[in-house]
Amino acid sequence: MIGLGPGEHDLLTVEAQKALADCQVVLGYKTYVKLAGDLLKGKEIMASGMTKELDRAALALEQAAKGRKVGLISSGDPGIYGMSPVVFEAARAKGFNLDGSGGFKVRIICGVTALSAAGACLGAPLSHDFACISLSDRMTPWELIEKRLDLAAEADLVIVLYNPRSKGRPWQFQRACAIVARHRGEDGVVGIVNRAAREGQSIELSTLSGAPDCQVDMQTLVIMGNSQSFVYQGSMVTPRGYVNKYGEAWDREKARGAKD
Amino acid sequence: MIGLGPGEHDLLTVEAQKALADCQVVLGYKTYVKLAGDLLKGKEIMASGMTKELDRAALALEQAAKGRKVGLISSGDPGIYGMSPVVFEAARAKGFNLDGSGGFKVRIICGVTALSAAGACLGAPLSHDFACISLSDRMTPWELIEKRLDLAAEADLVIVLYNPRSKGRPWQFQRACAIVARHRGEDGVVGIVNRAAREGQSIELSTLSGAPDCQVDMQTLVIMGNSQSFVYQGSMVTPRGYVNKYGEAWDREKARGAKD
Repeated sequence: MIGLGPGEHDLLTVEAQKALADCQVVLGYKTYVKLAGDLLKGKEIMASGMTKELDRAALALEQAAKGRKVGLISSGDPGIYGMSPVVFEAARAKGFNLDGSGGFKVRIICGVTALSAAGACLGAPLSHDFACISLSDRMTPWELIEKRLDLAAEADLVIVLYNPRSKGRPWQFQRACAIVARHRGEDGVVGIVNRAAREGQSIELSTLSGAPDCQVDMQTLVIMGNSQSFVYQGSMVTPRGYVNKYGEAWDREKARGAKD
Repeated sequence: MIGLGPGEHDLLTVEAQKALADCQVVLGYKTYVKLAGDLLKGKEIMASGMTKELDRAALALEQAAKGRKVGLISSGDPGIYGMSPVVFEAARAKGFNLDGSGGFKVRIICGVTALSAAGACLGAPLSHDFACISLSDRMTPWELIEKRLDLAAEADLVIVLYNPRSKGRPWQFQRACAIVARHRGEDGVVGIVNRAAREGQSIELSTLSGAPDCQVDMQTLVIMGNSQSFVYQGSMVTPRGYVNKYGEAWDREKARGAKD
């Protein structure tokens, strides 16, 4: 399993590049195969559409069981809303051996997550405790998603929304903002990153009441600050609390240093 | 700001390597300077100890304001429990301009987080909604940390613990396990990764009641599964729910395919 990172080839790890170079067959969701582009030259490619995740994972396992070096690609980090769990789910359902006794082993090669890429675009919004919540209700009941949003906001966690808005469920993002605003107020800082580290990247800073009017789709990551988050010269920052704790002593020390 | 990834040089991104090659001065916490090793050859190095984060960030800003190309290194991703926020906090406290008008700009180069590295070691534990919570009470009141653990567990989020146990607060990790066990039962799956993707890496699978007896320190990442997490042949997996949703139809289809 190979993590491609957010999109730009410079954000791939050296290990991921070596692994791509080394494999014979590459399987992936069409969009990611396209993203990998040149890196897949000379490989046998098996691209498939969305909602075909299980079939793709099973096919990868079958190919590996035949003794081929298989690369299953995933954007970002395969472990975070990526293909990793699907491979294990498929392996368990079909009884594949992953301990080496079936003739092959699964190796997971991490990548830079969309989370990190979006955070870097905005400044330092993720620097304290945070929760990642996907608004997709394809496999999670919407009631549970709402409960998670509510409790995460009550816990004053920074909240990262994956899959914030699709054509089939345009109303959920607005609802999510309203739930978080109950705890954090309508002015809570929100950072919105479209296509982080990909062609067409765009960044917007907003508030919990303003965010629903921003451009948000399935390639957007939304980061809702905690009660301490602030904007400084266009950057969104969630402080760790260094200045709060050491600030006065720090400044005193500097002042003393300047006099000495 | 440059993210070094978890430790192994192969887990650096191409962009981070280019940036390191490009800078004149490198600042960092001693341990990470050591971790970067050869990559810093020929650079002026300013290493400093822990608890010196603010001074280090301010020094980096001063050096940059002098027109030097400064690399401030951080392990993992600088945005996740790393140095990013400290730079912004220091800049705001000291009035540095980060919008280019002060003669320099801050660029954040993401890295693979410890989170991803530890997840890949265990299998696919982070594949559904999750929360990251640091148990360090250096700058966050312990009462708030307990509240976050309690609400995150109630929300059935996978919970990742950073800084799970230090010599100064050996009792907190056990307390954290007990809080989560109230919601998830004593048998809840726990994955424990020491020194992920670094020399001396070790992995252990345990339960919420067994985890306090495992080796856990400041270089450990602890991942507590949600109510659906399972262990399959030594790997910890949090399912997305593919087999649950499509499993039957998937198998029927395969069976039909086999007959046709």
